[in-house]
Amino acid sequence: MAQKPSIPKGTRDFSPAEVAKRDYIFETIRSEFKKFGFQPIETPSFENSSTLMGKYGEEGDRLIFKILNSGDFLRKADKNALTEEDSNKLATSISEKALRYDLTVPFARYVVQHQNEIEFPFKRYQIQPVWRADRPQKGRFREFYQCDADVVGSTSLWQEVEFVQLYDSVFSALKLDGVTIKINNRKVLSGFAEVIGESDKLIDFTVALDKLDKIGEEGVKKEMREKGISEDAISKIEPIFKLQGDFSEKLEGIKAILSSSETGMKGISELEFIQKAIENMPLKTASLDLDVTLARGLNYYTGAIYEVVAPEGVKMGSIGGGGRYDDLTGIFGLKNMSGIGISFGLDRIYLVLEELNLFPETVTQNTKVLFLNFGEKEALYAMKAVRNLRSENVIAELYPDDAKMGKQMKYADKRDIPFVVLAGDEEMAQKKFTLKHMKSGEQLVLNLDELIAKLQ
Amino acid sequence: MAQKPSIPKGTRDFSPAEVAKRDYIFETIRSEFKKFGFQPIETPSFENSSTLMGKYGEEGDRLIFKILNSGDFLRKADKNALTEEDSNKLATSISEKALRYDLTVPFARYVVQHQNEIEFPFKRYQIQPVWRADRPQKGRFREFYQCDADVVGSTSLWQEVEFVQLYDSVFSALKLDGVTIKINNRKVLSGFAEVIGESDKLIDFTVALDKLDKIGEEGVKKEMREKGISEDAISKIEPIFKLQGDFSEKLEGIKAILSSSETGMKGISELEFIQKAIENMPLKTASLDLDVTLARGLNYYTGAIYEVVAPEGVKMGSIGGGGRYDDLTGIFGLKNMSGIGISFGLDRIYLVLEELNLFPETVTQNTKVLFLNFGEKEALYAMKAVRNLRSENVIAELYPDDAKMGKQMKYADKRDIPFVVLAGDEEMAQKKFTLKHMKSGEQLVLNLDELIAKLQ
Repeated sequence: MAQKPSIPKGTRDFSPAEVAKRDYIFETIRSEFKKFGFQPIETPSFENSSTLMGKYGEEGDRLIFKILNSGDFLRKADKNALTEEDSNKLATSISEKALRYDLTVPFARYVVQHQNEIEFPFKRYQIQPVWRADRPQKGRFREFYQCDADVVGSTSLWQEVEFVQLYDSVFSALKLDGVTIKINNRKVLSGFAEVIGESDKLIDFTVALDKLDKIGEEGVKKEMREKGISEDAISKIEPIFKLQGDFSEKLEGIKAILSSSETGMKGISELEFIQKAIENMPLKTASLDLDVTLARGLNYYTGAIYEVVAPEGVKMGSIGGGGRYDDLTGIFGLKNMSGIGISFGLDRIYLVLEELNLFPETVTQNTKVLFLNFGEKEALYAMKAVRNLRSENVIAELYPDDAKMGKQMKYADKRDIPFVVLAGDEEMAQKKFTLKHMKSGEQLVLNLDELIAKLQ
Repeated sequence: MAQKPSIPKGTRDFSPAEVAKRDYIFETIRSEFKKFGFQPIETPSFENSSTLMGKYGEEGDRLIFKILNSGDFLRKADKNALTEEDSNKLATSISEKALRYDLTVPFARYVVQHQNEIEFPFKRYQIQPVWRADRPQKGRFREFYQCDADVVGSTSLWQEVEFVQLYDSVFSALKLDGVTIKINNRKVLSGFAEVIGESDKLIDFTVALDKLDKIGEEGVKKEMREKGISEDAISKIEPIFKLQGDFSEKLEGIKAILSSSETGMKGISELEFIQKAIENMPLKTASLDLDVTLARGLNYYTGAIYEVVAPEGVKMGSIGGGGRYDDLTGIFGLKNMSGIGISFGLDRIYLVLEELNLFPETVTQNTKVLFLNFGEKEALYAMKAVRNLRSENVIAELYPDDAKMGKQMKYADKRDIPFVVLAGDEEMAQKKFTLKHMKSGEQLVLNLDELIAKLQ
């Protein structure tokens, strides 16, 4: 019985034009990654569940897609879980593998597993899909690509500088001028919590602060109060909301606030290093801005925190983010391996390029010329020319059937093929081809060399 | 607690060199696909189970990886299956999605689902991973890529011709000269079964015949006997084993055998068409051969059947295969949509290129030059040059830390970076760079433009 075909919610089919545009973004990112000395790795789509579980918090664990064991999986099932109908408990006994949730944990696993084959510092990039059982909504999918570049094995701040340059280079190469690379430092955030006397509420404090863009100053204060942060503390951070000016001016502003915090001052000196280097090596099209409210899943990051936002006027959240993490591989037993990395949000970058009409026209260009089919003899004559064109890198096709000419022309039109070739008895006798431009209707009679030259 | 990291059996991590080599194969195949007018599509990694189940036979169904429903999956579980501990029955009630098993069924689903957006004939290619819960063994993996090109919507034999040319073009582009493209036709196989009076045993007959390479003539006859094919019938096909000579001579040979079978003669005329066309348009480096024992999962194919084998002397099974199928989309309710397609076996092609040393050296080339790091001032001087080199497409890196020079040199050596740059006070004063070739030890003192020119 015929089934009405569909795909699982939160997943997507990509048409030829969509694949071409996505490939253009991937290729641009990949090319810059390579220029900066990053090397590609790939890891399996599914990992042992033990590799992934417990690495993303309780909520993350719930969003991991689990793969059912093959064969008679109930034979090894947890009998208690079965009688109690406890899905969670049963899952661990009937599922050993799970689809990767991000590229970071598999990367950490890779580094530890292959540590003896790797030269550190190790600069790797990875462009692969990840899967999350999130509730699908506009712009949020259950299968999507991540494009990550990371370095592990060095604490040098030159890497912080390099990632700013990498963001700038990728977005400049994509002709997406005017993005803002926001930067912050975990140590500055820790410093804030310290000077207001709420170090034990660091997370609540930064989670609230991170929402300044969305809920405004009053909203942030309200949330801080709800989390039990004292009025006294809140009044002490008042100056954070009042920060004004360019990078240097804001930096001066927080210096005054953080002067008593060693950690905070360390964060400031790191930010200064980066700012000075970028001043000495100006960015191509992006701007670097200090955003002391930026946190991005703070627990993860230990130093620099990045977030990239689209040019002014484009309504789109972050199109990239990252930061330094000091102990990523520790969970797999390899200590003291500092890392720093950034990620590009493919789907959002796609939407921004689409909105600003920045995809080059050539990206979706397909077949350049369709040879019409007038019968077996004519088709052979055409195929010989098609073969020659292809070896000269011209995308050429023969319409496979000797259908009515109107049908063949309509096909060329619908597929946006710019040229057709008509070659019947007359052309064959003279070793010629009639080339017709679909839009203008202009026709030229050419020999093979002229045809190749014209279409190249 | 630290876990000893590993990956699921049958899956693989790919190192930078491996990814580079695989990408080279993908890129070469993709480039030829495009030249022939094929357009890319991508489909989700998992499909609704109902899309996949029942399409690959009982054995295939067992090899499909099923994804456990998220959340409290037992709530909707089949209670009878639970009490009976029936894994199969339970699976369908706790798993709605499954990882794709090949690219062909998802393609059929795509064509039916998007039939109103597609112009037929539709030439698509698709390069994505597939997953099978096969027992892992040498050269067989649970996750591997398929590279498929198909056309649906026309029965023209020019497509059969074009796929022969496509195979030739891809393997020629990979410099893998001398592959043999074997061709057969399902109608010829049906004709054989018909003339020996065993049409109802077509499958058993062809499955046995397909093994001629492996088990020899006596082995094939023995298997046929075991399957109940009569001695009389077996003696009638004797001439098949005796076929000699080139494509035309073998074709003459089977013409004599099949003269009484209309179906068989139709198959012969199709093969003749292809042979004549290829004679008129000689292949670049491959040869086309008739192999009347070729079956490749016969039930699937209705016309042409292809298989590509590596050049003589390389022990490797098929490195590609395909054929025509007349009713692929019928399972999803779209009738009369003939298709034909071929596939490339990435993993085997990789092994063949490795064995014959055919990967271009440039494929795994990484960073061209490492700037040594002598401190903050020197590093900034170096980074400025690195930045210039990168914009001229030279892969350049700064060693991130001002570690001992021996350590930095060792790093360049281990990573096979051909050049290092040393730039200290003296060079900085003169706006110069000392470029050292790692292998020869040769040193040059250059200004920035000379450095760029030298490394480009």
